[in-house]
Amino acid sequence: MRLWPLSALPEVVPGDDLAGMLADRAVPEGMAPGDVLMLAHKVVSKAEGRIVALADVTAGPAARALAEETGKTPALCELILSESRRIVRRRRSLLVCETHHGFVCANAGIDSSNAPDGTVVLLPVDPDASARGLQARLAAAVGGRVGVIVIDTHGRPFRRGLVNVAIGVAGFAPVIDHRGERDRSGRVLVATDQAIADELAAAAGIYLGKDAGTPAVVASGVATEPSPGGAHLLVRDPEHDLFRT
Amino acid sequence: MRLWPLSALPEVVPGDDLAGMLADRAVPEGMAPGDVLMLAHKVVSKAEGRIVALADVTAGPAARALAEETGKTPALCELILSESRRIVRRRRSLLVCETHHGFVCANAGIDSSNAPDGTVVLLPVDPDASARGLQARLAAAVGGRVGVIVIDTHGRPFRRGLVNVAIGVAGFAPVIDHRGERDRSGRVLVATDQAIADELAAAAGIYLGKDAGTPAVVASGVATEPSPGGAHLLVRDPEHDLFRT
Repeated sequence: MRLWPLSALPEVVPGDDLAGMLADRAVPEGMAPGDVLMLAHKVVSKAEGRIVALADVTAGPAARALAEETGKTPALCELILSESRRIVRRRRSLLVCETHHGFVCANAGIDSSNAPDGTVVLLPVDPDASARGLQARLAAAVGGRVGVIVIDTHGRPFRRGLVNVAIGVAGFAPVIDHRGERDRSGRVLVATDQAIADELAAAAGIYLGKDAGTPAVVASGVATEPSPGGAHLLVRDPEHDLFRT
Repeated sequence: MRLWPLSALPEVVPGDDLAGMLADRAVPEGMAPGDVLMLAHKVVSKAEGRIVALADVTAGPAARALAEETGKTPALCELILSESRRIVRRRRSLLVCETHHGFVCANAGIDSSNAPDGTVVLLPVDPDASARGLQARLAAAVGGRVGVIVIDTHGRPFRRGLVNVAIGVAGFAPVIDHRGERDRSGRVLVATDQAIADELAAAAGIYLGKDAGTPAVVASGVATEPSPGGAHLLVRDPEHDLFRT
């Protein structure tokens, strides 16, 4: 398998034809059918206009109270609350939130790095839909099925350091179910769902330093199963989650 | 970056010179200074004799009670308890344990797939030491610094499917601290520890299907920082962990 970065994009602004910008690069730079494109969500969010000027945000009482407790600004707290189903854990300035998509991450995925001054970038409203739109355009440009993963950087319980995970997936199955396959001694495997979209997202993180200006990485030579995709398949049902509550 | 599997090993048994088996393959197959070898812990455990015949295990009262509650065998429960500092979560047959190393994973990392009948494989006693031993031998064979990651497959809170993580690291820094670096607009980055050893471990998982007979994957062309390593650097201090208790 080969991982290679697409050449840098210019600064993406709301309304940009991101799919076109990627398709223009993908073919001349060597993307081919079967490849998977991993894309930092931030450029997707920017193209979709998910940038908010903090000065334009009116903080309500809950946000003002949360700001007091966390030391964050009331405007940021207002956005975090509006992007969250609920706060899962809280310690000092750290807010671990469950987003409306079901992702559990710090600050509901809101980030200010690589955002214009005084603004923050929210997660795409529907990253799976974003991935599907990009996938259709890239598949047409490349002339065959490709995969697309919209990725974000998450902290993890139990382990230090951040890794990238898939928050939008199109064109392939994000989880491979190995149940029923046999090990080398012929025993039937159990409980072996492989989160291949997250493995690929994590691999992309090796390239995507926050300051690199390289928002897109391609994996060539990886075996994926054709499927509509859907990062929602990677979200554990809260009822079966032992750590959400 | 290129990810490529080493050719399959014969079945590894206790006392095997695993480092020698890997070194014999690494050089003719193209491993070079700077490369990182990712290795399924199971072959390390087997070479180190961490295989237990369940018939040889005497279950104490706590294990027998746990067996009643979970439906697992008393012998397996005895091993899980002896490999654990504590049980972090429990639901029906699922036991999420904190191992003596500090890893949080199902059944304290004990696994029966690809183990001889009637036996289970435990985690290495000190996977960082295992990685250091392999790293020294591989570096000597290759003629320059290499990285070694001993990996295991973990479930995650919040997300479905398994990914590989690093449980032993030698030869490079498992976490890259980007704090103090600047984003494209010159803003200083905060809170951006990149868990590169886990990113590499996850990438290796793309190759390491449980039935593949391919326990080792090499990453070529990845930038790592020389360091003694240590997967303990990837373990969040329980006191700073919001999800362990």
